[in-house]
Amino acid sequence: MEFRELERVRPEEIEKRSFEIITQELGDKKLDPEQELVIKRVIHTTADFDYADHLIFSPHAVKLGIEALKEGVPVITDTNMGKAGINKKALERAGSSVHCFMADEDVAEDAKNRQTTRAHASMDKAARLSKECIFAIGNAPTALVHLHELIQEGIIKPRLIIGVPVGFVNVIQSKEMILSLSDVPYIVARGRKGGSNVAAAIVNAMLYQIS
Amino acid sequence: MEFRELERVRPEEIEKRSFEIITQELGDKKLDPEQELVIKRVIHTTADFDYADHLIFSPHAVKLGIEALKEGVPVITDTNMGKAGINKKALERAGSSVHCFMADEDVAEDAKNRQTTRAHASMDKAARLSKECIFAIGNAPTALVHLHELIQEGIIKPRLIIGVPVGFVNVIQSKEMILSLSDVPYIVARGRKGGSNVAAAIVNAMLYQIS
Repeated sequence: MEFRELERVRPEEIEKRSFEIITQELGDKKLDPEQELVIKRVIHTTADFDYADHLIFSPHAVKLGIEALKEGVPVITDTNMGKAGINKKALERAGSSVHCFMADEDVAEDAKNRQTTRAHASMDKAARLSKECIFAIGNAPTALVHLHELIQEGIIKPRLIIGVPVGFVNVIQSKEMILSLSDVPYIVARGRKGGSNVAAAIVNAMLYQIS
Repeated sequence: MEFRELERVRPEEIEKRSFEIITQELGDKKLDPEQELVIKRVIHTTADFDYADHLIFSPHAVKLGIEALKEGVPVITDTNMGKAGINKKALERAGSSVHCFMADEDVAEDAKNRQTTRAHASMDKAARLSKECIFAIGNAPTALVHLHELIQEGIIKPRLIIGVPVGFVNVIQSKEMILSLSDVPYIVARGRKGGSNVAAAIVNAMLYQIS
């Protein structure tokens, strides 16, 4: 049986070649140079060019995120999958770390006692860890809703919120709440789309800009 | 500031409500009852209705996958992210397990020595583990290409291949190779889209049908 021929690309060249194709297909689309590598990496992760339009950045969000990573500010995810997707070597080189509290027993218990989601309870645990964190939320809108509350109450002041949960219930609303913030940097995937893979890709795109 | 009102849904009802919305939006679209829960879970994971058209199943692939899981056939992923996304409690209940060899030192060394990808080398490691595995490939087309080779050579006979790598270099071709197989069950996301999250969602959709 004959197949469409495989492109001959050496293993270490595959990513470079992918980014060339993405650049080509974006054509005339103008991307902000500060945002470009984040947008392209998300497209690389999803093969979905919708993200070229739907990723919304507060002013200098990428630059501020990179600065925070270099200062060792920890990254909090809302799934172990998002945590797994972040490049640990690059994270370590930057001096940062990643934490996910979703599977912790105290979080499960807290969520049950208060009739809320584990994502909600795990944000409270993160708030106890530090007032300043980078949040990479790829799954749970309830995490974003609660972050918004904690910010309004002055309990936390995140260095960056990556707000890219995916889905159908309160996802759009929760992202709009983050987009309304004027004093917290954010990167948000407007609409229903997103995911733990997207959250991890955004963190990685920032880490890869740290030499 | 006023936001579009949050939908009041209890934590344990969110997933059910999401599936209702997906069913609603699929409208008149006819789904094969055997495939339905897999397709809907992938849409739930991605908010991308393209999958209703692009997921291709060999005859009774879902049923055969479920049978294999119940027999304890191990699942091999090509990313730790895919591994992280699989529900471990459901997997344990079914009697199966999940393995990812991508970060293993012997795999890295083997890949380097043979000028190939770690994904390729990690499929060789899986082949040494068992002739029969379930492969959940969400990232590396080179993994699918090599699985195709190993099958042609009679070295392995997978119980199911979930072929959903994402991207731009050889992704489409590698999936077409799997779609050409006549004696190995597969679930393939035709085209460029897919991901480790999609691979994990497909495994979970099968696990959740095991009582």
